[in-house]
Amino acid sequence: MSTTTPAVTTAESEAMGRALDLAAQGVRGANPLVGAVVLSGDGALLGEGHHRGAGTPHAEPAALADVRRRGGDPRGATVVVTLEPCNHTGRTGPCSEALIDAGVARVVYAAADVNGPAAGGAQRLRGAGVDCVGGLDADRSRRLNARWAAALAGARPFVTLKSAQSLDGRVAAVDGTSQWITGPQARADGHRIRSLADAVLVGTGTLLADDPRLTPRGAPAATPTPGKGLRVVMGRTAVPEDAAIRGPGFLHLPTRDVREVLDELFGRGVRHLLVEGGPRVASAFLREGVVDELFSYVAPLILGDGAPAFPDLGVGTLEAAARWALDDAGGPGIQQLGPDVRMHLRPPSTGP
Amino acid sequence: MSTTTPAVTTAESEAMGRALDLAAQGVRGANPLVGAVVLSGDGALLGEGHHRGAGTPHAEPAALADVRRRGGDPRGATVVVTLEPCNHTGRTGPCSEALIDAGVARVVYAAADVNGPAAGGAQRLRGAGVDCVGGLDADRSRRLNARWAAALAGARPFVTLKSAQSLDGRVAAVDGTSQWITGPQARADGHRIRSLADAVLVGTGTLLADDPRLTPRGAPAATPTPGKGLRVVMGRTAVPEDAAIRGPGFLHLPTRDVREVLDELFGRGVRHLLVEGGPRVASAFLREGVVDELFSYVAPLILGDGAPAFPDLGVGTLEAAARWALDDAGGPGIQQLGPDVRMHLRPPSTGP
Ligand SMILES: NC(=O)c1ccc[n+]([C@@H]2O[C@H](COP(=O)([O-])OP(=O)(O)OC[C@H]3O[C@@H](n4cnc5c(N)ncnc54)[C@H](OP(=O)(O)O)[C@@H]3O)[C@@H](O)[C@H]2O)c1
Ligand SMILES: NC(=O)c1ccc[n+]([C@@H]2O[C@H](COP(=O)([O-])OP(=O)(O)OC[C@H]3O[C@@H](n4cnc5c(N)ncnc54)[C@H](OP(=O)(O)O)[C@@H]3O)[C@@H](O)[C@H]2O)c1
Repeated sequence: MSTTTPAVTTAESEAMGRALDLAAQGVRGANPLVGAVVLSGDGALLGEGHHRGAGTPHAEPAALADVRRRGGDPRGATVVVTLEPCNHTGRTGPCSEALIDAGVARVVYAAADVNGPAAGGAQRLRGAGVDCVGGLDADRSRRLNARWAAALAGARPFVTLKSAQSLDGRVAAVDGTSQWITGPQARADGHRIRSLADAVLVGTGTLLADDPRLTPRGAPAATPTPGKGLRVVMGRTAVPEDAAIRGPGFLHLPTRDVREVLDELFGRGVRHLLVEGGPRVASAFLREGVVDELFSYVAPLILGDGAPAFPDLGVGTLEAAARWALDDAGGPGIQQLGPDVRMHLRPPSTGP
Repeated sequence: MSTTTPAVTTAESEAMGRALDLAAQGVRGANPLVGAVVLSGDGALLGEGHHRGAGTPHAEPAALADVRRRGGDPRGATVVVTLEPCNHTGRTGPCSEALIDAGVARVVYAAADVNGPAAGGAQRLRGAGVDCVGGLDADRSRRLNARWAAALAGARPFVTLKSAQSLDGRVAAVDGTSQWITGPQARADGHRIRSLADAVLVGTGTLLADDPRLTPRGAPAATPTPGKGLRVVMGRTAVPEDAAIRGPGFLHLPTRDVREVLDELFGRGVRHLLVEGGPRVASAFLREGVVDELFSYVAPLILGDGAPAFPDLGVGTLEAAARWALDDAGGPGIQQLGPDVRMHLRPPSTGP
C-alpha cells in the first residue's frame, strides 16, 4: 500500500477527508463508493458530489454539476476525488473527458482504478495537460471499496444478503409459519433494496414455501435488459409450471454450487446480486465467503425455537465466528423501521 | 379508564404532554416513570423535572428545585404531574408535603397513585387548601407504567431481563465458548444496569459455567442494606464452597419455581430484580410472563449454531409469539455500543 505522501496542499488534504465522507454516503453494490470535492485555485469549496449507485452520475460529474448549480465555474479548479477518474464509457460517459471538457486544472485522487476497462483516466488527463496526483488517502479509499474490488477481481457479482428474523435469530416458528415476521416498513425497505440489484436469488426451499415473484413491489415483470431484472432460483428441485416467479427474466439454475451460480450470473452481465435466502442458501453463500454486505431486519419478536437464520455454518467455537461490522454506507448502520430494526453490516476486516 | 375530561386550561393540558415526555426519560425499575412541569398563574413555564430512578428525587421536588435554580418562586404556582403526588416517606419525603411547603396553589395530575402506602396525596393536598384535579391524560400515564403497576399489584419485584447474543440469537458457540460475545462498551453498560437493580439473579448453569461475582464492576461485595445488593442463584444444584459469588448479599434459592423466587425476594424487600440468565432461566421468566423489560445486547457476529438465547419457550406458531416493542424510556430504544447494538424492549401491549 502507498506510503509516500503525495505533494498536496492542506486544503486538498482536508477536501479528501470530506470526499471520503461523501463517498461513504453512496450505496454499496455494482459500483464503488466514490466522492468528489471541487476547490478553487485558492482552496475555496466550489462544489461536491458522490456516486449514488448504479445508473446514476459518477462523483466527478455530480460535483461539477453542483459547482454550476451554485453559480460557480469549474475552469481552472482542482477536483479532489476518492478514486482515479474513469476512462470508460459505461452507463455514463468517461469522467476523464468530463473533467477535461470542464477545463479543470488539477485532479487529486486517492486510489487507482482497478477496473480494467475503466482504468487509464489519470494518463488521459495528463495527456490533456491536467495536473494529476494520485495516492492521497489511498488506503482509506481502498478499504471503503475492499469488497467491491474483491468481487471484481474474482469476476463475480457483488453479493448482498438480506435476511429477516426474530430477535432471537429465527426465520420461522416451529410450525413453519414465517409470514410476516417483520412489519410493512421493513418489507418496503427490502423492496427498495431489491430494486437496486441486477438480479435477485432464492433457493428452491423458499420457492416452494412462499411462491414469491421476486419483483420489486408493484413493478410488473418487465423484459430484462442484459444482466438486469433477473429473478433466479437455485437448487435441484424442479420449478413448478405455475410458479409465480415464471415470466421474463426468470432463470432456474439447477445446482447447489454457489461458485457455479456466480459464474453463470457474471457471464450474463449481473454485477450486483441480491440473495434473499432462505436460510440454507444464505448459509451456503456465507460459507463460501462471498457475501459482501448484509441487511439484517430484526423484528422484536421472541420465537424461542424454530428455523435458525443461518443453519450449518460450520462455526465450532466463538473465536472462529465472523465478526461483522455496522456499515453506515448509504444510511445508518442501525435504523428503526416501524416496530423493527434494520442492521446494515459489512464483513470482517473491511473498513469504513 | 377515565373518559370525562377534567376542567383544565390549555396551558395545563400542554404542560401534561410535556410532563409525560419528561417522565419517559426516566429509568424503568422499582419506581414509576413520573414527570412534572411547574406553571405560573398565567401559564408560563417556571420549571420542570422527572424521576431518574430509585433513590433519586421524585418528579415534583425535582421540578420545584428547577424553579428555584432558574430564580423563580413556586408560591401560587400550578404543578402539572403525571402521577398523583405521593403521601409516603420512603427514600425521599412525601411529595404532597413538599408541594404544600412550597406554597403551590394548584396541582393537576394524570393517574391516581395505586401504591397503597404512597396513595392519599391528593386528599392531603386538598386538606391543606391546594386546588387538586386528577385524571388528565390518565391513560397515557398508566400505559407508561403498566408493567410497574402489574408488578406492584402482584406483590413481586419489577423484573428486568438482560441477555447478550450473536446476531443470530446464540449465547454460546457449539463448543460452549461464550466469553466474550459482546465488546467492552456493551459489557460496561450491562454493569451500569446491574448497579440500578436491588438484586441480580442467575441460574446454577451460569454459576457453574462462568463463576460470576455479580457485583457491579469494581464494586466490592458490600454489606447489603435490606432488599439491596442481593446476588442470587436459583436452581437445585449446590453452590460450590469456593464460588466467587459467595460473600455478603449472596443468596441461593434451591428451586426452579419462578414465582417462589419472586415471593421470597419481594418478602426480603427487593423491588427491582435483574435476571442475567442464562438461557434456561431467562426462558423460565419469559414463560411465566413476569419480564417487565428486556435489554438485548446484540453482537454482529454470526455463529450459525450454538446455544439459543431462549430455549423451550413453547411458542409453536408465529401468531403466538410475543411482539415486544422498542422502549425509549431512559435512552434510545436502539443504540450502538462500540461494535454492538443494544435494544431496550417493553413487553407486548404496554404503551409509551
Ligand atoms: N426470513 C427470511 O428472510 C426468509 C427468506 C427466505 C425464506 N425464508 C423462509 O425459509 C424457509 C425455507 O427454508 P430453506 O432453507 O428450505 O430455503 P432455501 O435456502 O431457499 O432452500 C433450500 C433448498 O435450496 C436448495 N439449495 C440450493 N443450493 C443449496 C446449497 N448450497 N445448500 C443447501 N441447499 C441448497 C436445496 O434444494 P434442492 O434439493 O432443490 O437442491 C435446499 O433444500 C421458508 O419457511 C421461507 O419462508 C425466510
Ligand atoms: N449471553 C448471555 O447473556 C448469558 C448470560 C448468562 C449465561 N450465559 C451462558 O449460558 C450458559 C449456561 O446456560 P444454562 O441455560 O445452563 O444457564 P442457566 O439458565 O443459568 O442455568 C440453568 C439451570 O438452572 C436451574 N434452573 C433454575 N430454575 C430453572 C427453571 N425454571 N427452568 C430450568 N432450569 C432452571 C437448572 O439447574 P438445577 O438442576 O440446578 O435446578 C438448570 O439446569 C453458559 O455458557 C453461560 O456462559 C450467557
